[in-house]
Amino acid sequence: MQLRVIPLGTSAGRPTLLRGASALAVQAESGWMMCDCGEGAQLAAWRAGLSLSRLEAVLVTHLHGDHFNGLPGLLGTMSLEGRERPIFVSGPPGLREALETLVRVGSLGVRFPVIAVELTGPGGALELPEEIHASFEVVTAPLAHRVPTYGYRVSLPDRPGPLDFRAAIDAGVPPGPLLGELKEGRSVTLPGGRVVKPDGLVGPTIRGISVAYTLDTVPCAGAVELGRGADLLVHEATYEHARAELARERGHCTGVEAAQIAAQASAKKLLLTHFSPSVEGERVADEAREIHPDVVAAADGAGIELSSNRPE
Amino acid sequence: MQLRVIPLGTSAGRPTLLRGASALAVQAESGWMMCDCGEGAQLAAWRAGLSLSRLEAVLVTHLHGDHFNGLPGLLGTMSLEGRERPIFVSGPPGLREALETLVRVGSLGVRFPVIAVELTGPGGALELPEEIHASFEVVTAPLAHRVPTYGYRVSLPDRPGPLDFRAAIDAGVPPGPLLGELKEGRSVTLPGGRVVKPDGLVGPTIRGISVAYTLDTVPCAGAVELGRGADLLVHEATYEHARAELARERGHCTGVEAAQIAAQASAKKLLLTHFSPSVEGERVADEAREIHPDVVAAADGAGIELSSNRPE
Repeated sequence: MQLRVIPLGTSAGRPTLLRGASALAVQAESGWMMCDCGEGAQLAAWRAGLSLSRLEAVLVTHLHGDHFNGLPGLLGTMSLEGRERPIFVSGPPGLREALETLVRVGSLGVRFPVIAVELTGPGGALELPEEIHASFEVVTAPLAHRVPTYGYRVSLPDRPGPLDFRAAIDAGVPPGPLLGELKEGRSVTLPGGRVVKPDGLVGPTIRGISVAYTLDTVPCAGAVELGRGADLLVHEATYEHARAELARERGHCTGVEAAQIAAQASAKKLLLTHFSPSVEGERVADEAREIHPDVVAAADGAGIELSSNRPE
Repeated sequence: MQLRVIPLGTSAGRPTLLRGASALAVQAESGWMMCDCGEGAQLAAWRAGLSLSRLEAVLVTHLHGDHFNGLPGLLGTMSLEGRERPIFVSGPPGLREALETLVRVGSLGVRFPVIAVELTGPGGALELPEEIHASFEVVTAPLAHRVPTYGYRVSLPDRPGPLDFRAAIDAGVPPGPLLGELKEGRSVTLPGGRVVKPDGLVGPTIRGISVAYTLDTVPCAGAVELGRGADLLVHEATYEHARAELARERGHCTGVEAAQIAAQASAKKLLLTHFSPSVEGERVADEAREIHPDVVAAADGAGIELSSNRPE
């Protein structure tokens, strides 16, 4: 299994000609999720070859316009495209009021269910509709910005390790459905009544690929928690480190601080995004590389492939 | 005096890679106005070389997302750019509730006054703040769409005709301020007490250039009224004429119908816009050319210059 992460907008505060407002796609084989939905995200998704019909959820970190303004248009376009199945949308309190008002004044017309969930308290596992849960698991945690903000971790489900076929057959499990059950990591009862457990026959669980998405925020525990052991931490890096004080005042991070979070969380790879139009992303990434060995400066449309974890 | 009209988005319903959602700039020497503000309008304005600091007003026809979704981001960006002076925004009822809700939930942060005027009843001359009125005059009239919708006519003020200097001096007006007064079309009192009127010395009033903007609508009296004698009528032409019935059902026009409106209104030039992603604009314009002699299919970013009217 693979995940593809595609930055759809990597600018802070406003879209520019080179960087759209915040949005990012997390794409699995079965469908994809959007993290944040700044103005222009629907077109950026189109440019990236993503089909809106396969979009499962939009995970909004906070309601600042550069993370939210693309959502009404995205929903409207999906309705024009004839979508009927529900979409899941999460975000901080106020999300529902904003969407409901736009519907009431006639601005937003959707002919499919929008399951809008407002996040409160300490976060945790998101209860997703069953058909989405099969593909993705999502965990949230509060970040520390100027307004209520939640980060996300999007993961593929864990999978059982590889089955040692020869050992299983030697243990008496006949080829067929019972072997399939065992491969899924479940104990099986043989025709004679004997129970064969997967232990020793099925390798250690393969952890699903995980992507943490933590913007906007100052350095905070929530970002470390979401990024812990992640295959990819997507962290905001609004300013270069010389402007750390300004970043803090405005509720943001520098690339160096993002790398410190990534190192603390033992995230394997760090994707920096949400660059102020006044900074050069590559320069911010260079600073971060002093702290973390695998740092990429996000560029609109430049996808990153994450391959399946293998047992170590 | 000149006006430049720049289509910023010419698609119906949703932005596409070739055509943005509805928006159009009317640019004078002193500043500019935006008609409708679909998603992406702020970037289209930037691409067209328009400065947001010189934007005087946003005239919204109706609140459907493809005409409105760019407004919150536009206002947010102007605030980031440090705007302090007011902006004028007009639109149908619901405009204020939408903007106020976005402010309340923390989505829209503006640090300058937004003068939001909701249009009701039969329309008429818009009362603009004094500093805008000096450059533009705006008249509104209701259109006939699926939701409350208003069209606009944006004009430069009329100007007095040219002064016949020789005749004025022969009439005893001395060079200097009095001659200037006369040139502005006002009577002057000479040092000896005699009054000289402009009649016969100042040519007929030069009508200010006018642009009517009428979308979305079925063929209606309001569009004819706004387009009457306009230098340019910008009219929606969502479908080719073979789909006139569908157009009517959905509250839209064909290019042929738009041309009939333009002919009826004696509008000098017709700019067709708001093309369904399923039609080819040039083909719709070709059909309209059977009815009106001067038809242009709008293309994003392709500006049209309108030169000062001369007395006939």
